Amino acid sequence: MSKYAFGVDIGGTTVKIGLFDKDGCVLDKWEIPTVKDNEGAAILPDVAESLRAKMEEKGIQLSDIKGIGVGVPGAVDDEGTAVNGAVNLGWGVFNIPKVLNGYLDVPVKAANDANVAAFGEMWQGGGKGYDNMVAVTLGTGVGGGIIIGGKILSGATGAGGEIGHMHVEDAETESCGCKNKGCLEQYASATGIVRLAKRRLAKDDKASVLREGTISAKSVFDAVKAGDEVAVEIAEQFGEYLGKGLANVAAVVNPEIFVIGGGVSKAGDILISYVEPVFQKYAFTACRGAKFALATLGNDAGIYGAAGLILREDV
Amino acid sequence: MSKYAFGVDIGGTTVKIGLFDKDGCVLDKWEIPTVKDNEGAAILPDVAESLRAKMEEKGIQLSDIKGIGVGVPGAVDDEGTAVNGAVNLGWGVFNIPKVLNGYLDVPVKAANDANVAAFGEMWQGGGKGYDNMVAVTLGTGVGGGIIIGGKILSGATGAGGEIGHMHVEDAETESCGCKNKGCLEQYASATGIVRLAKRRLAKDDKASVLREGTISAKSVFDAVKAGDEVAVEIAEQFGEYLGKGLANVAAVVNPEIFVIGGGVSKAGDILISYVEPVFQKYAFTACRGAKFALATLGNDAGIYGAAGLILREDV
Repeated sequence: MSKYAFGVDIGGTTVKIGLFDKDGCVLDKWEIPTVKDNEGAAILPDVAESLRAKMEEKGIQLSDIKGIGVGVPGAVDDEGTAVNGAVNLGWGVFNIPKVLNGYLDVPVKAANDANVAAFGEMWQGGGKGYDNMVAVTLGTGVGGGIIIGGKILSGATGAGGEIGHMHVEDAETESCGCKNKGCLEQYASATGIVRLAKRRLAKDDKASVLREGTISAKSVFDAVKAGDEVAVEIAEQFGEYLGKGLANVAAVVNPEIFVIGGGVSKAGDILISYVEPVFQKYAFTACRGAKFALATLGNDAGIYGAAGLILREDV
Repeated sequence: MSKYAFGVDIGGTTVKIGLFDKDGCVLDKWEIPTVKDNEGAAILPDVAESLRAKMEEKGIQLSDIKGIGVGVPGAVDDEGTAVNGAVNLGWGVFNIPKVLNGYLDVPVKAANDANVAAFGEMWQGGGKGYDNMVAVTLGTGVGGGIIIGGKILSGATGAGGEIGHMHVEDAETESCGCKNKGCLEQYASATGIVRLAKRRLAKDDKASVLREGTISAKSVFDAVKAGDEVAVEIAEQFGEYLGKGLANVAAVVNPEIFVIGGGVSKAGDILISYVEPVFQKYAFTACRGAKFALATLGNDAGIYGAAGLILREDV
């Protein structure tokens, strides 16, 4: 009887790892450095060695391990192949479960890290209890992860849920990182909010605490909480873009819940208060029942989701 | 060994029925009237009676029938329950397979008619060979059906794929049938194209064949084919709305192919020539590989899709 699973979240700097019991509780978590030399050839052997060391430390046999879930920063197909390689790791195209099985012979599942984090939030986080969910990650960019019927929607080329690159503004003159103009990411990410703030501040001389110090998504929402009128206008503009964008996402996949995470979401429920009313205004009637919640797993969403690939029954 | 399946497409006026062999070829197709009296209580018994008569005519035993697929004009959950009733049929909330099994004891699957038609196009029509597909139906309204991994994406409340109600125009002053303003349907449906045409013609006095006779989506695309400059402008505007809308759909579900059907699609490949370049301009890089094709099954998509619910292996 398998008692445990490992969740492995491979990032460009560190690999986060969690040991989970079969009920999905994390028993231990730790990190190892991501060694990217030689096209990242050492990454999976390093992971395997770290898992073996942990098993020895805890007195766990290989037969006690139900499997290993792996989140990877790149497109991964349903068989666990990094289809375009994982550029940030130096990886070329190869099948992750097969390679990892060369070191540790237990079931392995691999998927894109953003999708795995979304899966984690559905399984044990802000979306717990729902199996039609859209995760929205508001960080440096805007990421997304779509879970339908309890399964990750990865899409034809692994770009399912790339909602940050929906076109939402015809009048934009600056380019997004993806080279298009007017992407949702240009207004709803941490950097997008700073852009909205700078544009608003440049418009007139209205007093605002944002005119002092460095502007960040955090400083904008702190100012909103302090009642700063200019900051409220910026938050309204942010909410208009994101709420309208998510209304369009809902017309496509009709989720039960949106779970908002990423650094910007640390602003808390006030963020949702600027997004949800706009969503309700623009959403198709039958889609308006969608709930909004904050992500709860933070940086651990990846290890939870990776373990969930193994432990959640109907994946 | 089951040799046959029935595909049943229940509409507000007629029920279309097809008898299919196990390879998905239609052997016979016919229609019966939809009797909506008494909350549509006779519809399923009438269907059962018609299927029994056909089996008798063809010398087919019940044991030769693998099952019956049913498309219904309304939201249907994964168990085959018409969750909000089917208003156009007079139906309340009930489980379609269970009721139909009271008359004919073979496996029954039921789903929303637009989604079933999309499934038919994927199985035997314009999307054959692809299992990540978005069907776009340009008729009186704009409908959609999304197939992911060979399965219908019906969504939390059966509104998955309602892409006609994506918000695409902030400046709209008239209301859509759904009561919102600026829905894709207001520009890309048959009636939407007529609206675009009337607005364009009212703008100035530029000569156009569209100034004579009744304007329809057909007359607009006929005029485009004849080189009418005003009609070309209207088609460009249509393509701008639809291409941009589908780029946003692609950022969400990243399909392999868009299959365009409905009355407007009778214009043929020229329609795609106005949509695809705009899609390519606005789509996220990783989503640009999506193909465009015309639907090929016409009004038979529903019976094909319904039979496919039974016959296609991995549904």
